[in-house]
Amino acid sequence: MIKVTAKFFVNQNKIDQFIQLSKELIENTRKENGCIKYELFEDTTKNTVFSIIEEWENTQALDAHFNSKHFTEIIPQLELTVTQKIEVNIYKQII
Amino acid sequence: MIKVTAKFFVNQNKIDQFIQLSKELIENTRKENGCIKYELFEDTTKNTVFSIIEEWENTQALDAHFNSKHFTEIIPQLELTVTQKIEVNIYKQII
Repeated sequence: MIKVTAKFFVNQNKIDQFIQLSKELIENTRKENGCIKYELFEDTTKNTVFSIIEEWENTQALDAHFNSKHFTEIIPQLELTVTQKIEVNIYKQII
Repeated sequence: MIKVTAKFFVNQNKIDQFIQLSKELIENTRKENGCIKYELFEDTTKNTVFSIIEEWENTQALDAHFNSKHFTEIIPQLELTVTQKIEVNIYKQII
């Protein structure tokens, strides 16, 4: 299982747009092969900080995701709503 | 459900110590009431970056965790193994 976190620092004035775009990305992504979990979280103390936390069966499924139509179309739009670079970490579980 | 991510930037020379301490913290934490998930992940491209990704039933369980003996004893030791402040985010799921 591959775990991915993507952390977004969203412009205070673009939160609704960010959530709308994320919703579209999530709905499409959850239909993909090998997608175990793909969920959006909001920080409970900093309302401009969000994370998409994902689980994928394997790297092939994750690579296919990165090349999917919805991902390649929506991510550039999401990048217009943030105040700094999206922080992506791709993890493997060790304990 | 409360989701927590704690991201660690570990000193290259203290990775084994970090993992050993994390193991002890995780074993004790998984016994706690309301602990759904408490897992350690290593970044697949940056071997000094780790995250503990957690799920808790509610804030009471998480608060009890923050005050537990093992947490209060082990976290200060973990802080000696990192090169910058531990990045903690407490999240609620929105999609």
